[in-house]
Amino acid sequence: MIIVLKPDTQKPQKEKLIDWLKDMGLGVHISDGAYQTVLGLIGDTSEVDMDLIASLDIVDSVKRVSEQFKCCNRKFHPDDTVVEVGGVKIGGGNFCMIAGPCSVESEEQIIGIAKAVKAAGANLLRGGAFKPRTSPYDFQGLHATGIELLKAARAETGLPIVTEIMSATDLDLFADVDVLQIGARNMQNFDLLREVGKTNKPILLKRGLAATLKELLMSAEYIMAGGNEKVILCERGIRTYSDYLRNTLDLSAVPMLHELTHLPVIVDPSHATGISRMVPPMAVAAAACGADGLIIEVHNDPLHALCDGAQSLRPEEYARLAAKIGAVREAVK
Amino acid sequence: MIIVLKPDTQKPQKEKLIDWLKDMGLGVHISDGAYQTVLGLIGDTSEVDMDLIASLDIVDSVKRVSEQFKCCNRKFHPDDTVVEVGGVKIGGGNFCMIAGPCSVESEEQIIGIAKAVKAAGANLLRGGAFKPRTSPYDFQGLHATGIELLKAARAETGLPIVTEIMSATDLDLFADVDVLQIGARNMQNFDLLREVGKTNKPILLKRGLAATLKELLMSAEYIMAGGNEKVILCERGIRTYSDYLRNTLDLSAVPMLHELTHLPVIVDPSHATGISRMVPPMAVAAAACGADGLIIEVHNDPLHALCDGAQSLRPEEYARLAAKIGAVREAVK
Amino acid sequence: MIIVLKPDTQKPQKEKLIDWLKDMGLGVHISDGAYQTVLGLIGDTSEVDMDLIASLDIVDSVKRVSEQFKCCNRKFHPDDTVVEVGGVKIGGGNFCMIAGPCSVESEEQIIGIAKAVKAAGANLLRGGAFKPRTSPYDFQGLHATGIELLKAARAETGLPIVTEIMSATDLDLFADVDVLQIGARNMQNFDLLREVGKTNKPILLKRGLAATLKELLMSAEYIMAGGNEKVILCERGIRTYSDYLRNTLDLSAVPMLHELTHLPVIVDPSHATGISRMVPPMAVAAAACGADGLIIEVHNDPLHALCDGAQSLRPEEYARLAAKIGAVREAVK
Amino acid sequence: MIIVLKPDTQKPQKEKLIDWLKDMGLGVHISDGAYQTVLGLIGDTSEVDMDLIASLDIVDSVKRVSEQFKCCNRKFHPDDTVVEVGGVKIGGGNFCMIAGPCSVESEEQIIGIAKAVKAAGANLLRGGAFKPRTSPYDFQGLHATGIELLKAARAETGLPIVTEIMSATDLDLFADVDVLQIGARNMQNFDLLREVGKTNKPILLKRGLAATLKELLMSAEYIMAGGNEKVILCERGIRTYSDYLRNTLDLSAVPMLHELTHLPVIVDPSHATGISRMVPPMAVAAAACGADGLIIEVHNDPLHALCDGAQSLRPEEYARLAAKIGAVREAVK
Repeated sequence: MIIVLKPDTQKPQKEKLIDWLKDMGLGVHISDGAYQTVLGLIGDTSEVDMDLIASLDIVDSVKRVSEQFKCCNRKFHPDDTVVEVGGVKIGGGNFCMIAGPCSVESEEQIIGIAKAVKAAGANLLRGGAFKPRTSPYDFQGLHATGIELLKAARAETGLPIVTEIMSATDLDLFADVDVLQIGARNMQNFDLLREVGKTNKPILLKRGLAATLKELLMSAEYIMAGGNEKVILCERGIRTYSDYLRNTLDLSAVPMLHELTHLPVIVDPSHATGISRMVPPMAVAAAACGADGLIIEVHNDPLHALCDGAQSLRPEEYARLAAKIGAVREAVK
Repeated sequence: MIIVLKPDTQKPQKEKLIDWLKDMGLGVHISDGAYQTVLGLIGDTSEVDMDLIASLDIVDSVKRVSEQFKCCNRKFHPDDTVVEVGGVKIGGGNFCMIAGPCSVESEEQIIGIAKAVKAAGANLLRGGAFKPRTSPYDFQGLHATGIELLKAARAETGLPIVTEIMSATDLDLFADVDVLQIGARNMQNFDLLREVGKTNKPILLKRGLAATLKELLMSAEYIMAGGNEKVILCERGIRTYSDYLRNTLDLSAVPMLHELTHLPVIVDPSHATGISRMVPPMAVAAAACGADGLIIEVHNDPLHALCDGAQSLRPEEYARLAAKIGAVREAVK
Repeated sequence: MIIVLKPDTQKPQKEKLIDWLKDMGLGVHISDGAYQTVLGLIGDTSEVDMDLIASLDIVDSVKRVSEQFKCCNRKFHPDDTVVEVGGVKIGGGNFCMIAGPCSVESEEQIIGIAKAVKAAGANLLRGGAFKPRTSPYDFQGLHATGIELLKAARAETGLPIVTEIMSATDLDLFADVDVLQIGARNMQNFDLLREVGKTNKPILLKRGLAATLKELLMSAEYIMAGGNEKVILCERGIRTYSDYLRNTLDLSAVPMLHELTHLPVIVDPSHATGISRMVPPMAVAAAACGADGLIIEVHNDPLHALCDGAQSLRPEEYARLAAKIGAVREAVK
Repeated sequence: MIIVLKPDTQKPQKEKLIDWLKDMGLGVHISDGAYQTVLGLIGDTSEVDMDLIASLDIVDSVKRVSEQFKCCNRKFHPDDTVVEVGGVKIGGGNFCMIAGPCSVESEEQIIGIAKAVKAAGANLLRGGAFKPRTSPYDFQGLHATGIELLKAARAETGLPIVTEIMSATDLDLFADVDVLQIGARNMQNFDLLREVGKTNKPILLKRGLAATLKELLMSAEYIMAGGNEKVILCERGIRTYSDYLRNTLDLSAVPMLHELTHLPVIVDPSHATGISRMVPPMAVAAAACGADGLIIEVHNDPLHALCDGAQSLRPEEYARLAAKIGAVREAVK
């Protein structure tokens, strides 16, 4: 950590600060420049409160030199993490295709879609049983029944299943689910992160609506600090002033995250855009810039879907898209 | 709900859509204009999926006419809600002054501050026992012990206590707390909202970092739909591109929320700005534009605070501020 | 335009508004629903002040049905516009590769880079002669000399030249420039837009830092309303809360703009990311989602560039990228 | 400027960078810490390209210690600047009340409003003669005629006049205007800033829609570097994701700017909110947090105003507001 003092700092104030820092067990390297004094802190600064120091009258600015995220930091773990789910590998050059409906609605629906997306090239099945809805009056999902139906679809097709968990109290219900999804609204539900960090299940962690990359990585860190290293990050659009689409898909997060962390990074173009005809161009763009996979909503009957139909592809559209994605991945190799 | 069709819509497509809407039990008022057809839906449109309809090829745009929030809507409840907490009234022309440290650290600390803020004009005591921290390696609060210390401070001073709950599984620990705070990061933790909605405790609901006013009101609606009408809204700064302060305090949310809802609206200038010397000007501005109260961090020794010290006022600064706020409230009457 | 009145609107107020609208020469189609009255305005509503109407006590909401942009609207001009510059076609399935240094520095530099980017696959040369700099103390460009050097590079290589104009008073200096660039900061410098709209030169119009797609199209409209239809739109990153890269590249703007307008849409990954190693992944992603071209900074000696070197590729990196882009375009055909 | 090198930097690379910095005439203070090397640059670093250095492989981060703005920096000019306009003082404890219509429409209109706002407490008159409009088809103002009408209103009432200039080529027309306004969309029209910097007229500089405070100050610096020190800054709302009001009024910019600069800071609650009933609460809040004045739209007949009527107060509303503002200013003294 580096502390830059204001030009007119008096000696007694400066010494008081240095003593206080030393009391915390830190080494302090003092560099008196022509215009200002710079203090370099040596030792474990992870418990030093940057904001507190920045607020002091004599301090011009403070800068943390080392990142607070450790487990997910590529610096300390240069090789890509590969998460394995029921024989499917995610990360490290493997591309995952997660597809399925927004909500699980019925056995017929979920099995029908599961077969269709498998035929079209998907290797994991998604479907919502617990739905986070802005309004308490909207459909909230089939809950336990929905999970049973997902398992039935898995039994039929062999596709591992991915579904969202909204509360740690539901963990038992998810015992036989392959990948637990943490939704964007729960990215900083730290209690939930800590609890799923105690399981050994792969966690699909979605970026919050207004989360920085550092915050996303710190949330991954919450899970990994508990011992669970199987974290898959997901960019799903951020909230900006731009009003034509539901969110702004931040694709540059993909190469940036690959630089910062060894964890796999996938993209959700369905929730990012909210409009099905925008999904294929953004999906191929995600593949082009190095994403490790895609999670895409597919529905066999968008007009009657209970929610989010507007962003779902039909199976035949998904099949065409899957072919294009393969070609793009080949092109950028 | 109003659906505007595209100018070149063919008759069979239009009739198919109208039939589908009627199948959902809705009345459809058709208005054929010179350039476009407008469908006005009559009946309960709360289950109609706006996004799905907007995604149809023949649809130009969709607009919901009635808001989805009911319980907290001023249209259906014109009078201000007044929340009572241990003799203190919040809302309806009453101004609450919530003050205290970021974290509860020790009995001496919390009782000392409680006495100081009471003397300075506060009528509720805040203090964090469960702390939401971006990093799993940062101090997470004293938990149960922290709540006991808050109760001790209440016993000493008579000030009702406000503290944050992060998980519904902790509800028992909060049985004797006066006001439950839902933090910004949990504003859309719908399971938590639902659970506190089953209690009869006043809930201080903070606006999410990137929440619209409608989303804030829908989260209040989650609590109220459970039967708990004692919700206090709190503006605490939103996330924008602006980088000089931690957040951008959106004070215009205060008069806007007062127009939309009958719930009390308070302001947190400490978290919004993150710098103690910015707290007084923003606090008086909040009082000037009609806030029903303020929640402000006060610490007796900022330099040694475990967290967030940078944004805490000293008791004597708080006392001076409290006097100014009284004068401003008088001036805008 | 559609006006939704509030449920409790009294008849005299409603009639007063209808009379006022009719006085403006509009037809008013009145639709009395069960809950509210909806007025559909027929005729030329382009001069109607939406905000004024929205502010009236009896009005719940107002919605404009027809877009205000005409010349650039795909509805009225379904075929792609193809802009021709010195034999190079932009739009309509043709892909342009604009490359060159941030600033023109010397004859040797610009001719050297021009040759290098031409060999690597570029078909237009960019270079700044007038530089918009946040600080008045930063290098502002070589001005007239810079333009002469660009022309020399064109003479040597045959590449048409693209350079930024910052003021209409400089138009004479740009008489022999092939494409005039309007920078992001001048996207709503309406006087400049109007003046370049009177020329017959192709205009490369960059999206403003916080411009909506509608505002970008309205700025194109300013140019086209003057008779100049040769407008090329450019997505170059928008300003958001996200702080890892200089801007957030909004690639979904590419397919969205293609839907809204017939004008070509290119992407600038250099300014969007500000970091050269992020340019290749975002460039291939742009090509994958349908961009009509790329404008990329290339420098032969980034370490000594006067400005923005951090975002420039070296010629050999550009050549590798150009090959990848060709492959990706083939893959998504 | 401080440069932090990556932990694994090799000696030859480090020395190459240090030599390069020394070649630029800078002193380099090297501080080898336990984990990293920190370089402190001594001398004039204003021409050093931070982004270029940050992009180097061996560099972890770069931090500028001294601000680039000089003329407007409070550090070098601790006393408040007081701008005088026709006997009215702005800044340094003096509060200015600028009021008038969005657009000048007719002699009767502007003289009528001028008299009304003067009676209500305004001491400067505003009115648009050149209007920046998003659409080329919207009313663009009366131009030269509008300025003549403003002068007539000044002759009648004695109020100095404030009006927006959009292009340096119009400067002659503004020769007898008292305060030149630079609109938000032109905040980074650097040519225009430079030209008004050569005049000796007070400049009212509005913050851009997505401008940081530093960018606003750098734009003031463009004007002041030309010799014109009479700059008045204006906060008028920024663009965020929040969608209930036109913009988000960033009132915390007021105390923050007062800390950074000696220039007066006023607030425009009319454009910030876009709704007349939100103007009074935000105006008193601005006064409470220390603004040096307010610029407010007042119209005698909002329903027939050509533009922006929705945000205008009626004269009697303005008079009531003026009284409240006086009381609030007294309260926060």
